[in-house]
Amino acid sequence: MLVSLSDRSYQIEIGSATGDGSLGRAGVILSSLPQTVTHCVVLTDDNVQRLGYARTVAESLAQSGIDAAILIVAAGEQSKTIETANSLWTALVDEDVDRQSVLVAVGGGVIGDLGGFVASTFLRGIRFFQVPTTLLAQVDSSVGGKVGINLPSAKNSVGAFYQPVAVLIDTSTLATLDDDQFACGLGEVAKYAVSLDESLWRLLETDAAKVLAREPSTLGTIVNACCRIKADIVSRDERETTGLRALLNFGHTFAHAFETHSEYKVLHGQAVAVGSVLATRLAVRLGLVDNAMLERVIELHKSLRLPVKPSDLPQLPKWDAGTIIKLMSRDKKVENGRLKFVLPTSAGKCELTEVGDIDEVKRILEE
Amino acid sequence: MLVSLSDRSYQIEIGSATGDGSLGRAGVILSSLPQTVTHCVVLTDDNVQRLGYARTVAESLAQSGIDAAILIVAAGEQSKTIETANSLWTALVDEDVDRQSVLVAVGGGVIGDLGGFVASTFLRGIRFFQVPTTLLAQVDSSVGGKVGINLPSAKNSVGAFYQPVAVLIDTSTLATLDDDQFACGLGEVAKYAVSLDESLWRLLETDAAKVLAREPSTLGTIVNACCRIKADIVSRDERETTGLRALLNFGHTFAHAFETHSEYKVLHGQAVAVGSVLATRLAVRLGLVDNAMLERVIELHKSLRLPVKPSDLPQLPKWDAGTIIKLMSRDKKVENGRLKFVLPTSAGKCELTEVGDIDEVKRILEE
Repeated sequence: MLVSLSDRSYQIEIGSATGDGSLGRAGVILSSLPQTVTHCVVLTDDNVQRLGYARTVAESLAQSGIDAAILIVAAGEQSKTIETANSLWTALVDEDVDRQSVLVAVGGGVIGDLGGFVASTFLRGIRFFQVPTTLLAQVDSSVGGKVGINLPSAKNSVGAFYQPVAVLIDTSTLATLDDDQFACGLGEVAKYAVSLDESLWRLLETDAAKVLAREPSTLGTIVNACCRIKADIVSRDERETTGLRALLNFGHTFAHAFETHSEYKVLHGQAVAVGSVLATRLAVRLGLVDNAMLERVIELHKSLRLPVKPSDLPQLPKWDAGTIIKLMSRDKKVENGRLKFVLPTSAGKCELTEVGDIDEVKRILEE
Repeated sequence: MLVSLSDRSYQIEIGSATGDGSLGRAGVILSSLPQTVTHCVVLTDDNVQRLGYARTVAESLAQSGIDAAILIVAAGEQSKTIETANSLWTALVDEDVDRQSVLVAVGGGVIGDLGGFVASTFLRGIRFFQVPTTLLAQVDSSVGGKVGINLPSAKNSVGAFYQPVAVLIDTSTLATLDDDQFACGLGEVAKYAVSLDESLWRLLETDAAKVLAREPSTLGTIVNACCRIKADIVSRDERETTGLRALLNFGHTFAHAFETHSEYKVLHGQAVAVGSVLATRLAVRLGLVDNAMLERVIELHKSLRLPVKPSDLPQLPKWDAGTIIKLMSRDKKVENGRLKFVLPTSAGKCELTEVGDIDEVKRILEE
C-alpha cells in the first residue's frame, strides 16, 4: 500500500505470512528506487542478528549488486540514546557513507526510531529503508516517519519527521518474537481498534485466540489493517499540524510518563495498553463515554492478555500521581503549558481533548 | 528580503548600519508570525552575552509580552558538538519548552548552526529565529537553513536542512567583532565575489580600505549583496538536490579538511579563503581558467588581509596531502565515492566538477 505525502510517496510492502518470508525482497525494492543505490549500511540489534534477519537482508542486497555492511547495537530501549546515535554517526563516517548511501533498519521499534534519526541527521539526511521485524514496529513505528531517541528525562523528545524510502514487512518474522514483545505489539493493535477502527475491534474480539496462537493469516490481516489506518492518517497530516495525527497517540500520554518513570524498563506497548484503559477511565469521568465502553476496553485487553492497570506492569517502580503528571507535562502535545489527551468518544472514535482540571487526571491515577 | 521555499517563505530583515542598531526589532518580528509566540529560549555564547546583544533581544521580546530565558554556551567551534547539543536538549526540557516555543539564536555561525540543530530535533522540530551578530553569520550561515554540529572526524556531518522563521541582521554589531572574526566573514564575502558575483568582486577591489575600516554603509551594502545571492540560490535549490546550492561551497572542500585536521582550531572563513585560492589553482591546472584569474583571486584576498596558502593559517598543525585528501573524501558532495569540487570557470562564475584524477589535487596541495 502507498503512503502519499505532499512531496513524495512510498510503498509499504507486506509479505505473505506463510512460506519462506519476504525479507529477500529487500534488494529488489531498493533497486527499483528512482535514484540508484550501490551502498547500504544495515542497522540491527544483537537479538535480531542472532535470528539471521539482517543477514538475509544483506544477502538480498548483495544479490542486487548493492554493498552492505552490518552495524549491530544492543537490543532494547537502552540503545535509543544520544550515546548510541553518536557511535553510529562515527561508524557511518568510517564506513564511507555518502549522500547516495541508504541506511536499512532491520529490527523492532528501537532500531527503526534510532536508525531513522541517525539517517535523518547524517550529512543532513540520507535515505533510509524500514524492515520491521516485531509486531510493534510492523503495525506502528515503521510507518509514518516519526524517528528519534529518548532523553533520560523525556521519551522520544529528540527526533524528526523523516520518511523512509520504503517499508518491507515480513510477517513470518513474528513467529520468533518472545511473548513480551508480541504483547507489546498487541498493545498498539488494541489502541487502533479502540480509538480508530471498530471493525478491527470486533475482529479482535472474535479472533483473540487465533491472534494469541499467532495464526499467520490472522496476523497478516491485522498488520494490514493497522498499516492502512496509519498510512491514511499520516497521508493527511504528516507533521501532526492539524490534530488528526495526534489521534494515533491514544493511551500514549499516560504510557510515555510510565515509561520515562521506569527509565524505559516498562515496554512501550504494555504501557500503551494501560494508558488506553486509563484514558478511557478519564473519558468516563469527563462524561465522554459510558461505563459499558470502559468494560469493553478492559475486556479486549484481558482477552489479548494485556495489562489493564499500572500495577500490572512489573517493571514499573513505585510512583505517585504528582510525579506522573509532572512527566506528562513534557508530552509533545502540550500547548502553551496545557495538557492534552486523546480520549475515546465512542467505539472506534476519539478526539484530542484539552483537560483543564488536572485533578481529574490525578484522581484517575490514584483510583 | 524574502527567502521563498516550496512550502513557505521567510523574511531577512537587515537593519540600518548606522544609529542604535535594530536588535530591538526582535519582539515585533516574532509577534508578527502567523502562529502566536508566548515563550522563547535565547541561545547565545559567553562573548556575545558580555556584549549585551542577547539581553537586548530578550528585553525586546519581553516588551512584546514574550517570556524569554537565556541559555549561554562557551564561545567557539568547540561548542558545536553533540555534547553541547545534549546539554541544550536537557535545558529545553527543564525550561518547559513546548512545540509553540521559539529558539532564538543570537551570535555567530556556531550559535546559529548549533541552535538550529537543537531546534530542528527537539520535539521533532520547534521554530527558530536567527539573529546573527558576526559577519560570517550575517552573510552566510544564518540564511538558508543549514544547521548542524561537527563530529570529531568530520565537520558539519550531523545536521539538517531546517529553515528559520525569520532572520534579523543588525550590522551595527559588526563594530565589536575582533579582527580574526571579521576576517573570517570576509573569507565568505570573497567567496561570493569570486565564484558568484563579479560586480561584488569589483566593489571589493574598489572599496577594500573602506571594508577593512568597517565603514558602516559599505558593510551594509556588502551584507545585503551576499544575502541576496544566497537567498536567490536557496530559493531555487533548498536541499542541494540540483547542484545549484552546492555552488555556495566554493573553497569549502579544502576548507573543511583543514578545519577538521586542526580539530576546528583554524577559523572557518580563513580556511575558506585558502580553499578558494587552492580551488582556483586546481581550476588553472585543469584548464578551466587562466593564470590571470588566479592572480586576481590572490590579489583580492591579500587586499582584504586574508590568508592565501595553508602556511598562512597559524592554527593548522603539520599535515600531508594524503591526510587532507582522506578528510576530503568525507565531504558531503562526495557521490558514490567520487570527489567533487566547486571550481571557477570565469570571474564570478563557477561549476560543480567531478575531479577524476586525485593526483591533480595532491599536486595542488604539495605545491
